[in-house]
Amino acid sequence: MNSPRFFEYVFRVPFHQVDGAGVLFFAHLFTHAHDAYERFMQNLDSSLDRLLRESRYALPIVHAAADYRLPLRHGMEVRVHMGVDRLGDTSFTTAYDFIGPGGEHYAHLELVHCCTQRDAHRKTPVPIELRKQLQPYVHNKP
Amino acid sequence: MNSPRFFEYVFRVPFHQVDGAGVLFFAHLFTHAHDAYERFMQNLDSSLDRLLRESRYALPIVHAAADYRLPLRHGMEVRVHMGVDRLGDTSFTTAYDFIGPGGEHYAHLELVHCCTQRDAHRKTPVPIELRKQLQPYVHNKP
Amino acid sequence: MNSPRFFEYVFRVPFHQVDGAGVLFFAHLFTHAHDAYERFMQNLDSSLDRLLRESRYALPIVHAAADYRLPLRHGMEVRVHMGVDRLGDTSFTTAYDFIGPGGEHYAHLELVHCCTQRDAHRKTPVPIELRKQLQPYVHNKP
Amino acid sequence: MNSPRFFEYVFRVPFHQVDGAGVLFFAHLFTHAHDAYERFMQNLDSSLDRLLRESRYALPIVHAAADYRLPLRHGMEVRVHMGVDRLGDTSFTTAYDFIGPGGEHYAHLELVHCCTQRDAHRKTPVPIELRKQLQPYVHNKP
Repeated sequence: MNSPRFFEYVFRVPFHQVDGAGVLFFAHLFTHAHDAYERFMQNLDSSLDRLLRESRYALPIVHAAADYRLPLRHGMEVRVHMGVDRLGDTSFTTAYDFIGPGGEHYAHLELVHCCTQRDAHRKTPVPIELRKQLQPYVHNKP
Repeated sequence: MNSPRFFEYVFRVPFHQVDGAGVLFFAHLFTHAHDAYERFMQNLDSSLDRLLRESRYALPIVHAAADYRLPLRHGMEVRVHMGVDRLGDTSFTTAYDFIGPGGEHYAHLELVHCCTQRDAHRKTPVPIELRKQLQPYVHNKP
Repeated sequence: MNSPRFFEYVFRVPFHQVDGAGVLFFAHLFTHAHDAYERFMQNLDSSLDRLLRESRYALPIVHAAADYRLPLRHGMEVRVHMGVDRLGDTSFTTAYDFIGPGGEHYAHLELVHCCTQRDAHRKTPVPIELRKQLQPYVHNKP
Repeated sequence: MNSPRFFEYVFRVPFHQVDGAGVLFFAHLFTHAHDAYERFMQNLDSSLDRLLRESRYALPIVHAAADYRLPLRHGMEVRVHMGVDRLGDTSFTTAYDFIGPGGEHYAHLELVHCCTQRDAHRKTPVPIELRKQLQPYVHNKP
């Protein structure tokens, strides 16, 4: 049995996102998590990417949460490790660990994505093609 | 007995924060919540504001969470109602309801602030002066 | 003859826009200028606002420039005075002065807006209704 | 004689920076230009980087300007080519061309950096070490 995979996204803390206390402003970690998610989706099987762009599906975020453990400072190179915590019928949860150059764990974030019909805003099952692609990244939580 | 108070902060959804889906990007709600918190702190007894600025205390955010109920669209005027959900020994939780023009409830956010010594990054009790000023805004959760 | 008018927009420098040097990051002044412009457009005769929203016109920014004179710091209340520097056939220039609490002049910005047909991206004359509303704000430059 | 060099910085237009019109918001191009500048400075001879961080010098931006030629859309990979347009006694101008996947020219930006004493805010000559490192990137304008 294979161990679950994660998707890696790297960024450097830019000058303009460091607040008056010299620390990456807490809300910007959500933005970097979303950048990781976006890159992950772009790397999926391209026919799926097209399916999501053109189709009737939308994946709005209905919940977001973050635990901040250590402050991220200007110029640091940060690796974001993205996995899938839960893959439900009509929603799934992506999780993000922010890792520093020495392996330190800076923060943990979670985003809950709900699958809806684009116009009706009604919940609808996660499409089978997307489900297949998310499966290898699912981490079973104890 | 007085009912608990909330602090009101108003903003309008700007063009540049509306994403490709025509909706206020989810991370920006944390920024608006923090703007409300900042304005609240500036309105406190000015000697307290000075105490916090000059003193050895810092109030880093250690946890943040949001529930998104309805999409916020460009140009909408939004009222943010801020209260205090929990006032602990060394930390407190501020809560934010995003209310639309017709009273609709768009989102609920929470921020957990930890009180630390500025240099040592060690937890320290919430100063009594700040505690007094937060008290009227504490909402007892059922 | 009436002297030309300006439109006033007020903001406070938020914590999260202050960079590692303790100063409002230079790019954010463009955002605040655009917020002023957006508010100005929303305050126009509402039928014009609707015209612009629904019609075939777009007003993309083709040039932007800023002179920074003094650093803007966290918590400062800033008044933005917006006027129109030039009202041409197919474009116009809006100008923004950033004024501090004591009347100090912090920065001057300019945005050049081009009037185009929404789909064809071809230049087209500024609609007469918009021209009328901009006219009182035109400042003749020496 | 060597032709002048440029420094390349690559980014992808993220979802959250695309405005209500589906286009990268104009102010964000300044942010991406500054990210390129920051990366350039980090790649300089490390002793110089340290000199600037620790020393009495600051390099505030006193002027910024942009010409927008074509709209940048969500997901596009953009190469920023940075060079030096002018290297004066107490200031220098960095220039940025935004290039699309097919070589299209999307925008041209300029930033004027002034060299000051950190505390006195008085102009001071660009340090000789920095001048040496900028020299290979100077483009003589006709």
